[in-house]
Amino acid sequence: MKKVKAVAIVSGGMDSAVLAYDLADQLGGSFLHILSFNYGQRHAVELNAAEEIARRLNAKWSLVDLRGLGSLLPGSSLTDPAIDVPEGHYAAESMKATVVPNRNAIMLSVAFGVAFADGAISVGAGFHAGDHHIYPDCRPGFVSAFSDMQSVALQDLGRPAPLLYTPFLYLHKSEIVRIGHRLQVPFGITWSCYKGGDKHCARCGTCVERKEAFADAATPDPTEYAEG
Amino acid sequence: MKKVKAVAIVSGGMDSAVLAYDLADQLGGSFLHILSFNYGQRHAVELNAAEEIARRLNAKWSLVDLRGLGSLLPGSSLTDPAIDVPEGHYAAESMKATVVPNRNAIMLSVAFGVAFADGAISVGAGFHAGDHHIYPDCRPGFVSAFSDMQSVALQDLGRPAPLLYTPFLYLHKSEIVRIGHRLQVPFGITWSCYKGGDKHCARCGTCVERKEAFADAATPDPTEYAEG
Repeated sequence: MKKVKAVAIVSGGMDSAVLAYDLADQLGGSFLHILSFNYGQRHAVELNAAEEIARRLNAKWSLVDLRGLGSLLPGSSLTDPAIDVPEGHYAAESMKATVVPNRNAIMLSVAFGVAFADGAISVGAGFHAGDHHIYPDCRPGFVSAFSDMQSVALQDLGRPAPLLYTPFLYLHKSEIVRIGHRLQVPFGITWSCYKGGDKHCARCGTCVERKEAFADAATPDPTEYAEG
Repeated sequence: MKKVKAVAIVSGGMDSAVLAYDLADQLGGSFLHILSFNYGQRHAVELNAAEEIARRLNAKWSLVDLRGLGSLLPGSSLTDPAIDVPEGHYAAESMKATVVPNRNAIMLSVAFGVAFADGAISVGAGFHAGDHHIYPDCRPGFVSAFSDMQSVALQDLGRPAPLLYTPFLYLHKSEIVRIGHRLQVPFGITWSCYKGGDKHCARCGTCVERKEAFADAATPDPTEYAEG
């Protein structure tokens, strides 16, 4: 087993798939440790996509089981079957129902622990400009504050703290699609829909955003939608 | 069920037991949600102490199961049966073998998510001056950076981000013992020993520190040690 150089958080969605291909392009896939998280999300089907991406890149893949947190972090439509997934535009206020409290701080903290144990130099995450409106834990201010925190939390332990790598932080989703197209990302196997059915629903916020991104990038959309 | 006002991370050791009694003294025990973490530590016996403390305070208790992280965070004697728990003084360099990479960032991130979901105003942690030398994620700089990160990560979600409450940050363990003595903390049920046997071993770093704290505080030590 070669030494891991980077850990990447990959949900199985489009953005983190492009991130994984970007890191594999830079380092070689076998230097990559892909982490995916099961936090009880109803669209856990995305995890199959993450595993397949790791397989295609010849990267190590680990699934972190945080299902035990589900009952402690109620109130999100992504994890609570009693709350409907909102439909409409991804940036609409109604999308706040999809916030899982502190999800990204939790996932990143775990990823930094794993990266430090691996001796990796960076932790990659696919945050992008389209996330900023609804999710405070995807914004540049969060990325900066989280990086600062980690450089303190892992100091004086004999090797440098990994750095947080977020190459898409100021990009829009259509720009990420263009980068992914160049890197030959298999978008057809990625999963976005929050509803977690057999096909993409085409109506929840993340499906609307997905369709828009391919259209704006003027790139073929390989997604099979349930309607339209 | 009354509304939770504070979440406290309680390991079952002395410091976090005093923290729980301090918060219960301020708020009433029924306004407290005590979180304990199973991360595969060999001294998981401490979790029984945490549960008993919650029961005595009439506080809500939740055990967060992070055992799935164990194999992803190797290299610590606390979680890896192949690495011996070092003996000697708690502040010695050899104690670095007890570092679990990024443990406190992971536990605090989960606790902030739970506190936010609970509508709690604070997250309590028992960090103290004796931890600063070996563990970077117990130092004032970490507490400050972590607090800053959380205030950004949970902004604009309709209610304030909880604050991090670390009343013992600059105190030595003997001072915490004195506070606990005043609050009638049942130190006899708390657990420190990293080795996780039937009795405290009296020789690992945290046992040495425990004995010293009671001696320095000139307070009776109710601990049953395996020797001496």
